[in-house]
Amino acid sequence: MSKGLSIVQGRLLKSIHFTAQYGAKGVWGGASTETGVCRLALSDLDKMVRDWFVSETKKLGCEIKVDAIGNIFSIYPGKNDGVPTAIGSHLDTQPTGGRYDGVYGVLAGLEVLKIFRENSFVPNYPVAVVNWTNEEGARFPKATMASSLWAENVSEESIMNLESITDQKPVTVEQELTRIGYRGEIPASYKENPLAAHFELHIEQGPILESENKKIGIVTGAQAYDWYKVTIQGNSSHTGTTPLGARSDALLAASRMITKCNEVAHKHNGLVSVGVIDIEPAVVNVIPKKVSFIYDARHASDNELSKMHADLTQEFEEIVRTSQGPLSIKPLELSIEHLFHSKAVHFDPDCISSVKDESIHLYGESNVKEIMSGAGHDSCSTSFRCPTSMIFIPSRNGISHSPEEYSTPESIDEGLSVLLGAVIRYDELRKIKG
Amino acid sequence: MSKGLSIVQGRLLKSIHFTAQYGAKGVWGGASTETGVCRLALSDLDKMVRDWFVSETKKLGCEIKVDAIGNIFSIYPGKNDGVPTAIGSHLDTQPTGGRYDGVYGVLAGLEVLKIFRENSFVPNYPVAVVNWTNEEGARFPKATMASSLWAENVSEESIMNLESITDQKPVTVEQELTRIGYRGEIPASYKENPLAAHFELHIEQGPILESENKKIGIVTGAQAYDWYKVTIQGNSSHTGTTPLGARSDALLAASRMITKCNEVAHKHNGLVSVGVIDIEPAVVNVIPKKVSFIYDARHASDNELSKMHADLTQEFEEIVRTSQGPLSIKPLELSIEHLFHSKAVHFDPDCISSVKDESIHLYGESNVKEIMSGAGHDSCSTSFRCPTSMIFIPSRNGISHSPEEYSTPESIDEGLSVLLGAVIRYDELRKIKG
Repeated sequence: MSKGLSIVQGRLLKSIHFTAQYGAKGVWGGASTETGVCRLALSDLDKMVRDWFVSETKKLGCEIKVDAIGNIFSIYPGKNDGVPTAIGSHLDTQPTGGRYDGVYGVLAGLEVLKIFRENSFVPNYPVAVVNWTNEEGARFPKATMASSLWAENVSEESIMNLESITDQKPVTVEQELTRIGYRGEIPASYKENPLAAHFELHIEQGPILESENKKIGIVTGAQAYDWYKVTIQGNSSHTGTTPLGARSDALLAASRMITKCNEVAHKHNGLVSVGVIDIEPAVVNVIPKKVSFIYDARHASDNELSKMHADLTQEFEEIVRTSQGPLSIKPLELSIEHLFHSKAVHFDPDCISSVKDESIHLYGESNVKEIMSGAGHDSCSTSFRCPTSMIFIPSRNGISHSPEEYSTPESIDEGLSVLLGAVIRYDELRKIKG
Repeated sequence: MSKGLSIVQGRLLKSIHFTAQYGAKGVWGGASTETGVCRLALSDLDKMVRDWFVSETKKLGCEIKVDAIGNIFSIYPGKNDGVPTAIGSHLDTQPTGGRYDGVYGVLAGLEVLKIFRENSFVPNYPVAVVNWTNEEGARFPKATMASSLWAENVSEESIMNLESITDQKPVTVEQELTRIGYRGEIPASYKENPLAAHFELHIEQGPILESENKKIGIVTGAQAYDWYKVTIQGNSSHTGTTPLGARSDALLAASRMITKCNEVAHKHNGLVSVGVIDIEPAVVNVIPKKVSFIYDARHASDNELSKMHADLTQEFEEIVRTSQGPLSIKPLELSIEHLFHSKAVHFDPDCISSVKDESIHLYGESNVKEIMSGAGHDSCSTSFRCPTSMIFIPSRNGISHSPEEYSTPESIDEGLSVLLGAVIRYDELRKIKG
């Protein structure tokens, strides 16, 4: 259902490669387009791509709103006034970013507006394309920074004073917004500047769609996740003079726990991963007396996530009991600290249906798959305050946050076609619902 | 069999506490003797205790020889000329050392000579007390440094040029020997300056004697040991977007291996320990792409040590095969590098018998135990070039290389009594063997 509209094959990819000039970095292949992009939030390069985006959307007849945190809302008029249906993502990248993460979603929105304009199509309600500031959290260390502020999930003061971690002399968000001219007048708030819905087209950043040979991921939400720091206190002693039965070996206990993390993840059909481990005293012939690691647990269900943690706590206590030698002079001790929690995100049924119906209409049931997002996105923020859903396309080898991030030209266009149709479907739904 | 000689109760411990003035550090209890000692090799403090040792042994009528690496040989004359029977250990300590490690052995030798002198006892052959330079390898990073040079297991040039790692401005062994006046004339060589035998009295530095309630350990040798560096290459990916089946998680594989190290050690009745682990990139939400750890394997038998390594290699290969997800785009890769090997040391049967017979004579079969040394000692060096054995006394809680290192006053005297008798037994044996 795209009202007779269709995309211009290959034009979105050209636009993606065009904007990669603002920060191209990290050659991975022989072609001129085979590089990544480094375009940190609120940098000079970010200003250039923003200015270009504003100029392009103005040419299409958009009204431009910039809010206090630099989010850009380019609003294409509809038949009726009212709150716009939004297509949003981000133009900033990781320091070792690729060409697609974020950029794809914003430029796909721009492409939708171009198609509207070229076909003299007027939606029932305004359609906005949104560029959210600092989604990556790479320069200013807060991921989905500006969409979180818009959703009022964080305070404006904490965000404005956030200092950069990639500059030799740190600067604040507020200083950089002012410097590049994107400290807007409109409050950064869903209350003052609401959206009727938010659609985001994004690369999967994981291997699922590719490995299952699907064209489109209909994203139904994002996994809940928790970070826990686990610390094991044991006893340092000489590796040569301490019998196995007299040891309280903190690393042996930690190794059993990390192995158990994987087993528990399999059991609950969730994810548990350990990326960080610290060890003391870290001497070849001394048994470690203190080991800590952080585990990252994820699940589509908040309830199952809690159950995984409860299981792990019980397993860890058992490991501590059984890892201590009977002749050890000092017991192993366990402590677990909760560092971070993010609730499961469930996207809006109407938005999901718009994406699903269009995907199946275009490619058939066998080529699409409902999927949960494993990573955070601006859509996770917007979902707190307006109906939201996302569309994924396959990522080659699941690689992202790397210059080698890649999706095929066919996928790029297929995702765009779904986005175009889904936004028109939702616009029709708004009219029916009134 | 101590020829009617007996020790003076408590005097050796007084002498130990006296010399602790040269470097007392690290208070662990209320009494003035409840500190550790920091007396690094060839430091000013080391010079002080050396000068005191030389002066004390001179008073007893010893001839003093200092070799090129600063080893001190204080030789008490016998009825016959000839190569001396030695009692040796070291006066240097770890930076966070205790009062007993090394010091006990040298001062026990001094005490034996005092008892000879006080009782006008003249052994059949000369008896030397030896202070070996830099046994700890803490200041100059080569453990049993000077006994290894004496045994010609290392080259003189490599040792003389060794630089200190505890000084802000590194200095060489040769510079420090010259500075403190202990660069002697005699070549540091068992050929030029031979010993007829070497006895060493030492604290166990492990928990075995204490936990089995034994007074004396008859040391029959030292375990063989190997250090291996194991490196696992996997694939970095996002903890949230990468299904378990698509991972090549280097830390998960390493954790399984470390757990397996312990199982294989139990199976072979040996020791395998991991004290060091490194991880890349060490980010909470990124699956580790590279993990390396060093394992320290020990066994009384060279053959069993080899078998443990062969078993572990096979197990590690199996772990690498089974830890890689079926959908992973990059296989896990294993490499194993051999860093260090020390062969099993088997002490001399006659020396062992001298210790064993005296121990049983004094304390009965039930209070003594044959034991392998888990740590390296100067006696491991001397055993290559002359008949050698050691005597252990219990260490409280198995603690060593710590200010809290402690053995009871009774143990201190019991070890000395065995040493006195064992040296006299060996001296008799030499006379009989001619």
